[in-house]
Amino acid sequence: MTDEKTITELIERWVSAVRTADLEAVVADHTDDVVMFDVPPPEEGVRGLGAYRATWPPFFEWIRSGAVFGLVRTEVTAGTDVAYAHLLLRCGTPAELARRPDHRLRITLGLRKRGGRWLIAHEHHSFPLAQQDETPAARADRETQGVASSDG
Amino acid sequence: MTDEKTITELIERWVSAVRTADLEAVVADHTDDVVMFDVPPPEEGVRGLGAYRATWPPFFEWIRSGAVFGLVRTEVTAGTDVAYAHLLLRCGTPAELARRPDHRLRITLGLRKRGGRWLIAHEHHSFPLAQQDETPAARADRETQGVASSDG
Repeated sequence: MTDEKTITELIERWVSAVRTADLEAVVADHTDDVVMFDVPPPEEGVRGLGAYRATWPPFFEWIRSGAVFGLVRTEVTAGTDVAYAHLLLRCGTPAELARRPDHRLRITLGLRKRGGRWLIAHEHHSFPLAQQDETPAARADRETQGVASSDG
Repeated sequence: MTDEKTITELIERWVSAVRTADLEAVVADHTDDVVMFDVPPPEEGVRGLGAYRATWPPFFEWIRSGAVFGLVRTEVTAGTDVAYAHLLLRCGTPAELARRPDHRLRITLGLRKRGGRWLIAHEHHSFPLAQQDETPAARADRETQGVASSDG
């Protein structure tokens, strides 16, 4: 099996573990020093497997309340010993997804191969922030400065 | 020079190219098939070097208006032929940074080594979305459903 296939299966296992709120399966293929840039803070990222584990229970409550978390597209680039992948997912409450069917959660993963096994060492989760989604602070700055808030 | 050092220098060149609004230098070390998950949409990502180039001019205007774009932390994981990096940056107008000095832009990069040269093939840019930043849509959903909007 190619590394791309192995990593794609690892990702599919992870997504279904999130969907079934199976914490042990969610953290099963991660390094102890995992760094996650989550949708919410901390600003510097969630650092270490313990902190990573602790982010999941509140999300599982949200999933149990009926929220959707499903892969739409998976693109994997695997090297000899390091890989990255970028994913597009449908993630939201039925009300959110009904209002914005094309809205996507973007996830980027960084992986390392150790002892012949691929492990996730980095995750970056975000939603695109459209103009109509801009935060009160960003809007205040834009209106003050007359420039669109964007990171390029 | 180690691959980590080579990639760290590539990243520092890219950041200073953004700061000086030097478009040719900004796109100099990217693959033709680069995929960027930008702070704003498109939901499916900015795909291809031409589309990537086109995202920069509006951001350069914002930089010229006095916005800050500076590296705070760079962490690189380089394999034989694939690498990833995650960065924390100060990015905002002076007013935004004065109000939220700890606010960070998070960037994850995916790189491939081709012909002995490292190139950026993926970028993921986002700001953490704090509860006080939640969008009107997210707030409406949270208040409707009585659950916090989060991606775990």
